[in-house]
Amino acid sequence: MQIEKPYLMFVGDVADQLAAKTAAGIVDWRRDWCVGQLRLPGCRADLGLEDLDIAEGVRRGARTLVIGVVNAGGVLPEHWISVIVEALEAGLDVASGLHRRLEEFPQIADAARHHGRQLHDVRIPSQSFATGKGSKRSGLRLLTVGTDCSVGKKYTALALEREMRAQGLDADFRATGQTGILISGRGVAVDAVVADFISGAAEWLSPEADPHHWDVIEGQGSLFHPSFAGVTLGLLHGAQPDAFVVCHEPTRRTMRGVPTALPSIRAVIDATIANGRLTNPGIRCVGIAVNTQALDEAAARACLAEIGQAEALPTTDPVRFGVADIVKRVREIFG
Amino acid sequence: MQIEKPYLMFVGDVADQLAAKTAAGIVDWRRDWCVGQLRLPGCRADLGLEDLDIAEGVRRGARTLVIGVVNAGGVLPEHWISVIVEALEAGLDVASGLHRRLEEFPQIADAARHHGRQLHDVRIPSQSFATGKGSKRSGLRLLTVGTDCSVGKKYTALALEREMRAQGLDADFRATGQTGILISGRGVAVDAVVADFISGAAEWLSPEADPHHWDVIEGQGSLFHPSFAGVTLGLLHGAQPDAFVVCHEPTRRTMRGVPTALPSIRAVIDATIANGRLTNPGIRCVGIAVNTQALDEAAARACLAEIGQAEALPTTDPVRFGVADIVKRVREIFG
Repeated sequence: MQIEKPYLMFVGDVADQLAAKTAAGIVDWRRDWCVGQLRLPGCRADLGLEDLDIAEGVRRGARTLVIGVVNAGGVLPEHWISVIVEALEAGLDVASGLHRRLEEFPQIADAARHHGRQLHDVRIPSQSFATGKGSKRSGLRLLTVGTDCSVGKKYTALALEREMRAQGLDADFRATGQTGILISGRGVAVDAVVADFISGAAEWLSPEADPHHWDVIEGQGSLFHPSFAGVTLGLLHGAQPDAFVVCHEPTRRTMRGVPTALPSIRAVIDATIANGRLTNPGIRCVGIAVNTQALDEAAARACLAEIGQAEALPTTDPVRFGVADIVKRVREIFG
Repeated sequence: MQIEKPYLMFVGDVADQLAAKTAAGIVDWRRDWCVGQLRLPGCRADLGLEDLDIAEGVRRGARTLVIGVVNAGGVLPEHWISVIVEALEAGLDVASGLHRRLEEFPQIADAARHHGRQLHDVRIPSQSFATGKGSKRSGLRLLTVGTDCSVGKKYTALALEREMRAQGLDADFRATGQTGILISGRGVAVDAVVADFISGAAEWLSPEADPHHWDVIEGQGSLFHPSFAGVTLGLLHGAQPDAFVVCHEPTRRTMRGVPTALPSIRAVIDATIANGRLTNPGIRCVGIAVNTQALDEAAARACLAEIGQAEALPTTDPVRFGVADIVKRVREIFG
């Protein structure tokens, strides 16, 4: 899957900004891929882009209509379907992060076929994978891992890609979830792959590369999350990272969606090294990314200092303070 | 999925006994569920059952035609399709371990619909699962784990079920792969579940039960197999075993299908406890099952003695010497 750029961002008529979270993430990281936003009457979200209709979007060069919003109830409203069909008729592909496949709607499927357009359902892998091989590939890889789900693994990986490039490294973000796929225009939702092929999908995602090239791979779940650790382990084995960054949210007490206590950062470092050695004996932790959103600046600085000292690793909040120190550490170790 | 018993075993016209391996496993463990075998001219496999045609199978009470054979090339020959259709017309359900879904063959799908019969593709989960909850369920659980794939995890679990029942325990085998599903008439092929739902599928497979009831759960893969460890970890978390048995093949040097070296039994015990504690802090190893098929009896006894002494655990070859000592240990610990 390779989603054609640039994008016309479809916001529909969602009730609040939260419903447009995926679209907002795309604009945060890839504003220059977005020619504008398409909003319907009553829309209460705003991506901060120019409002365009489909015809104007096409004139500005848009290749794909991106549906990065969730609608109440999870169903696709009839008046959204007609906009999607209109976009296909105007020559746009459509990329969607919705739960239901675009193909399931006959009007959309027919219009795509009739006009020769692509439908991208980024939640659902469209290709088949081989099982993982486990053998070492050339190139360098960094994986973000976490004490839990939803602690900033995607954001950290994107911040690392940006900072690595700024510091002169050759680096590419590799997406493993739907928002990341829309942000990078490619990738695979590893949690939606058939279980036998998790590590194989990760190997496909980050193929052999130039010895100095970095793939910065978006992590998923946590080795300590009882719902999703299998995905995390398969991704770790397939990604075979040389380096990893632990992402953490210091005010969280239990894992997302379950009553299980959060593991310590040290436990995550140890488990990641113990398991990661299977496919890359040289694996090492290069930093810690802490989401301090819930803390004021003084408390955030104190928290980072404490963790950084305890673990003797560059420790930062990527949003507040950037990731320059982690990338500096990467360059010191790997040249 | 609940496959109706008894079975008429379809052997087709396969070229050798190996092609009927799944069917032979069913007969090994559930001979009293098998009313007979249906062989076509030229068949070179023999399950040691009476040869019956469909009409006679139905007269003897068969409810399901079981296709536990693989045909050369992986395609379903035309003359097998007509036998399957004939079975559906005669009122039998059909259960298949073939790679392709029975539904994909229009004649079979039509006949099943027309005659109101069930088609069971045991490789492909037919239900949807919730994500794993991770909370403790009542009842006792034993999981077989391995140093590698294909080291006897299914056989060991079935032998444990039989011996536990013989020693007066209330025990049920829980199948996680296609052959196991046909042997137990139910279960889920966990390696075919969408990655997000591995542990959820394992929780579904082994629900809350009487406090003294044992589920003996068939393990999959190995925590040290770079292709499949994600499946193994999700299954471990969802199964939340109180007890586990490590299965091992002493002559194997590299993991099945990959160049990775085999882990030690000790490494597997340690990793299983470290990871299993997340959903069951009381997890413990109760024995080791060694497949000594490649050794003569003296060498086998020496191998078992050496491993048993090193690990201070009941150590046996389930095929050669049974699993009575392991079950004795289980009763000592759990009452």
